[in-house]
Amino acid sequence: MTTTVIDHIGLLITNDSALGEGPLGQRRNASVVIEDDRVVSVGDAGQIADKRIDAEGACVLPGFVDSHTHLVFAGDRSEEFTARMSGQPYDGGGIRVTTEATRSTSTAELDRLVRLRLAEAHRAGTTTIEIKSGYGLNVEDEARSLDIARRHTSETTFLGAHLVPSEYVGNEDDYVDLVCGDMLAASAPYAKWIDAFCESGAFDAEQSRAVLEAGAAVGLTGRLHGNQLGPGPGVQLAVECGCASVDHCTYLTDADINALADSNTVATFLPAADFSTKQPYADARRVLDAGVTVALASNCNPGSSYTTSISFCIAIAVRDMGMTIDEAIQAVTLGGAAALRRDDIGRLTPGSAGHAVILDAPSHHHLAYRPGVPLIRDTIGPLGH
Amino acid sequence: MTTTVIDHIGLLITNDSALGEGPLGQRRNASVVIEDDRVVSVGDAGQIADKRIDAEGACVLPGFVDSHTHLVFAGDRSEEFTARMSGQPYDGGGIRVTTEATRSTSTAELDRLVRLRLAEAHRAGTTTIEIKSGYGLNVEDEARSLDIARRHTSETTFLGAHLVPSEYVGNEDDYVDLVCGDMLAASAPYAKWIDAFCESGAFDAEQSRAVLEAGAAVGLTGRLHGNQLGPGPGVQLAVECGCASVDHCTYLTDADINALADSNTVATFLPAADFSTKQPYADARRVLDAGVTVALASNCNPGSSYTTSISFCIAIAVRDMGMTIDEAIQAVTLGGAAALRRDDIGRLTPGSAGHAVILDAPSHHHLAYRPGVPLIRDTIGPLGH
Repeated sequence: MTTTVIDHIGLLITNDSALGEGPLGQRRNASVVIEDDRVVSVGDAGQIADKRIDAEGACVLPGFVDSHTHLVFAGDRSEEFTARMSGQPYDGGGIRVTTEATRSTSTAELDRLVRLRLAEAHRAGTTTIEIKSGYGLNVEDEARSLDIARRHTSETTFLGAHLVPSEYVGNEDDYVDLVCGDMLAASAPYAKWIDAFCESGAFDAEQSRAVLEAGAAVGLTGRLHGNQLGPGPGVQLAVECGCASVDHCTYLTDADINALADSNTVATFLPAADFSTKQPYADARRVLDAGVTVALASNCNPGSSYTTSISFCIAIAVRDMGMTIDEAIQAVTLGGAAALRRDDIGRLTPGSAGHAVILDAPSHHHLAYRPGVPLIRDTIGPLGH
Repeated sequence: MTTTVIDHIGLLITNDSALGEGPLGQRRNASVVIEDDRVVSVGDAGQIADKRIDAEGACVLPGFVDSHTHLVFAGDRSEEFTARMSGQPYDGGGIRVTTEATRSTSTAELDRLVRLRLAEAHRAGTTTIEIKSGYGLNVEDEARSLDIARRHTSETTFLGAHLVPSEYVGNEDDYVDLVCGDMLAASAPYAKWIDAFCESGAFDAEQSRAVLEAGAAVGLTGRLHGNQLGPGPGVQLAVECGCASVDHCTYLTDADINALADSNTVATFLPAADFSTKQPYADARRVLDAGVTVALASNCNPGSSYTTSISFCIAIAVRDMGMTIDEAIQAVTLGGAAALRRDDIGRLTPGSAGHAVILDAPSHHHLAYRPGVPLIRDTIGPLGH
């Protein structure tokens, strides 16, 4: 057993109001004692241990939980991004470009690419990450993508219903049957979650429901992409199907918000996707004020949001989505954990995972106050599980 | 003499259309040979030299020229930022908080803080930086701030006319007399430029003109803060006084744009300030379409824009200001150079400074495509001169 102490923490965010002030449970001049991978105590500065990490007065917070990524892909779509910035609209169709590149890339190379992206995310403070399939879109390549993802995280999501691949255009229902049949059967051994892109141009409510129900039948809990590009049935469907999270939520009606408020489905906002698709930013204030649990995630993918930076998401959420900095910090820690139905991560309390971020800054406010500056001095704990 | 080669450059931005394709002068599979601090040649990959830097196929571009910063300061204003994000407006008054902190901090400590910020800027790709005074606001502390700045860059700007300090409120004209008299006399030996904050609540056109003219009389060329918080006389005054640049330019009339187009005054946009003050973003498209030379700079300061990240400025400019990625790259290289009236930096051509940025990316598009991700793998060349 190894005991590690993070000491001389100027400001510690525990996310437990029993351990410090306010909803973030803030303590000054603190330390965190970690045995192996678990926090065993939170106390004042000045601890002795086998291994000592000196925070030198900086702010320390729980490692970020990134509950929505699509890291298993090959190919480059920077020119599609550039065209979109010049006025070409985003309709999700570019997913097929990535599918072609991903299918034709070896497993070893895909795994190498995933490792590079995970290393980047870890340097940026992420210690738990969800990874979706969704660029295979056939039986073999969806299962292969999840097999790769599973090597790196327990939070894997089968997203065969990402987009109808070229070979099924005009036979969408046949594709949904494939997703719910052979593709799910081949993918389920590697997946914890099931997801669908419920959006005009992708899958409608009936198709999305079929996918979620097929997943539930083999023990996969649902999550859903919904209400990204316009109002739609996604949120209501996610709530009805008991999904852990409904993600995007850029266009919400009052009825959508009421449905979320009466559920245990988390509303996950993906501000970097709104940034990169030139959509309006989601109004998180309205959703928070209704008492809904909110998460922020990167949505890292090559088409609509090619970032691993949770700090960037925080800055946009605070400037443009009506969130306070404290709410944004909760959303990338406790919120992400709730979206993955986990209570062992997203906090630094006795018994929780020893996953922490040491900032190059005296407080968490700097994550919004200093946009674009890499403020993650050190990420404590492995990424992925 | 040391010869350095940057080799195996996948995509080189020279900013010289004689050396490559398009306005950015792009070359594939290139190398740059640098002798001491100067580029001596640009050619194909596969060079031999004393010192070889392998770009491994990445994109290389000229080091960024950050033509507007306020790095000499002490104190923390993150809580003012947080309050502003929750709805408190920005009026520039917080400058007095920083002035108090800066005056009471030792020269050694101020110099240490400047070094930390310069190191951060250099890691983020900046190789030439302008530094203003403006948090001393008395004879001794303005001269002291510039003395510190001068240790690190030749691009120093006297900004005694940043805000009227508390002790002169109600006697603004007396303060302007001081700025133009004893303060200028004490500061000029350390300064290359003179600047004023021409804005409602700071200095009006007449006061700003007096400052610029006093500077010109002792050989300091003008630059001006103008049109940040609303329409105003700044742009027209800057053009009339032959300023090298007018900075902010968030609110411009057609007459302002016409005046800029007929001048050699650069329009410098500071998108991170618009971000951090919740102002609308400047419409750079309109200004570019009129043929005005445009720069982008960080405006790094503790009140309205606490970032050193030129990449962040590029991403915002591309998403929200109507600039193409190529225009944004020009604005942070050639544009910054023009704003400092320099033709030896901002390009990688024979004879220019050997200041380069190696990206962790195959093209410059990724600087906008991957918001928040630290993509600067290496910065070649010292910062500051």
